[in-house]
Amino acid sequence: MQPRVLAFDVFGTLVDWFGSIEREMQALLGQEPPNRSPAAFALAWRAGYQPAMQRVRSGELGWTRIDDLHRMILDGILPQFGLQSLDEPTRQELNLVWHRLQPWNDTADALRRLRTKYRLCTLSNGNLALLADLARHGDLSFDLILSAEVFKAYKPDPATYLGVAQVFDLKPEEVMLVAAHKDDLAAARACGCQGAYIERPAEFGPAGHKDLSRDHPFEHHARDLHDLADQLGCD
Amino acid sequence: MQPRVLAFDVFGTLVDWFGSIEREMQALLGQEPPNRSPAAFALAWRAGYQPAMQRVRSGELGWTRIDDLHRMILDGILPQFGLQSLDEPTRQELNLVWHRLQPWNDTADALRRLRTKYRLCTLSNGNLALLADLARHGDLSFDLILSAEVFKAYKPDPATYLGVAQVFDLKPEEVMLVAAHKDDLAAARACGCQGAYIERPAEFGPAGHKDLSRDHPFEHHARDLHDLADQLGCD
Repeated sequence: MQPRVLAFDVFGTLVDWFGSIEREMQALLGQEPPNRSPAAFALAWRAGYQPAMQRVRSGELGWTRIDDLHRMILDGILPQFGLQSLDEPTRQELNLVWHRLQPWNDTADALRRLRTKYRLCTLSNGNLALLADLARHGDLSFDLILSAEVFKAYKPDPATYLGVAQVFDLKPEEVMLVAAHKDDLAAARACGCQGAYIERPAEFGPAGHKDLSRDHPFEHHARDLHDLADQLGCD
Repeated sequence: MQPRVLAFDVFGTLVDWFGSIEREMQALLGQEPPNRSPAAFALAWRAGYQPAMQRVRSGELGWTRIDDLHRMILDGILPQFGLQSLDEPTRQELNLVWHRLQPWNDTADALRRLRTKYRLCTLSNGNLALLADLARHGDLSFDLILSAEVFKAYKPDPATYLGVAQVFDLKPEEVMLVAAHKDDLAAARACGCQGAYIERPAEFGPAGHKDLSRDHPFEHHARDLHDLADQLGCD
């Protein structure tokens, strides 16, 4: 069955959080040893992401946006990197790095190709303003920005995947999640959605490891978004 | 104070619901007398809009999207226009006329001008999929589509205007509502938002009446969106 809507994961799938944060941290951490490198900082910040969302999922925290979770994680890791004395305006500005992550090289053009044939939306745990800023910054073209913030639930909560179908008045199988993460795709599949896995081998940096195997049940496996557009018959 | 985000009302402000529905009804009602004319049909459909939302606001109906309210109103007025025998697929297709309303002539270009300087969002009682389809159909460019559907409240509920400020992490006075309806603008102003009134004299058709007076407290009064872009110093 042809999907009617493509729903895109964002962090890692459309934009390069690792490289973007590493570059921004060069000025603050350029001379530090490897365990305090800009790359280590990027990985440490991202490592706090799932545990922070888990505090919301478990009910320990009430609904909290990713901007605020990112800030809590940031405040927690700054001392490990010798940056405990960073002032408040600098912390606020640094936290907004997540609003200006660079897209992967193929992302903007391939989204335009895909959009000629499909309606495109985001489905990200990032909050709405963050996603709107990323789209403007990277010239990314969507029909609709959807976020965990709309559903007040974080992926992999079924309310998010089913929420996309409900918003567009579609059956779950008419929605295809596009993501670089097999756990996200598996949760969407459990809700009845289709899935397209995008490799993104450098998501965690040149030294990072990802399982890129084709040993998965999702409808598509693509090297990048142009490959997906080819598979979906887009011009 | 310069606004940080412009939030746009949609029906009547950006798109011409009257003319769009009148044109689509020509085929079904072209030969009928004036009280059953396409123009009368457009006005009757729209006349059901506020009462239908009031049933949601009052709690008589649970949360119901505009697509479903439009359909309830449609089913109610078809008999008055001799169309009670319209079949289900035709009714469904006709109800989607609200997803393909034509923008006013200035809308698409002026939004592009305004977007070079401001972040733009919608703030409409229309549901998300309807607004996404309108934006694609009319080539309308926003940073973010916001809807009553996100806030689960219909304008003029303060949760909608304040919701825009919260989504963008702004103070209410940093948000400017742009609308062709003074009651909408007055409700936004009561929440602390700025306002820009757009005239749209033909909103209710050539025979319709609107109060276009400048006797109002809003920060801007503009003939159309290019006029507003000029007033806001956009190239």
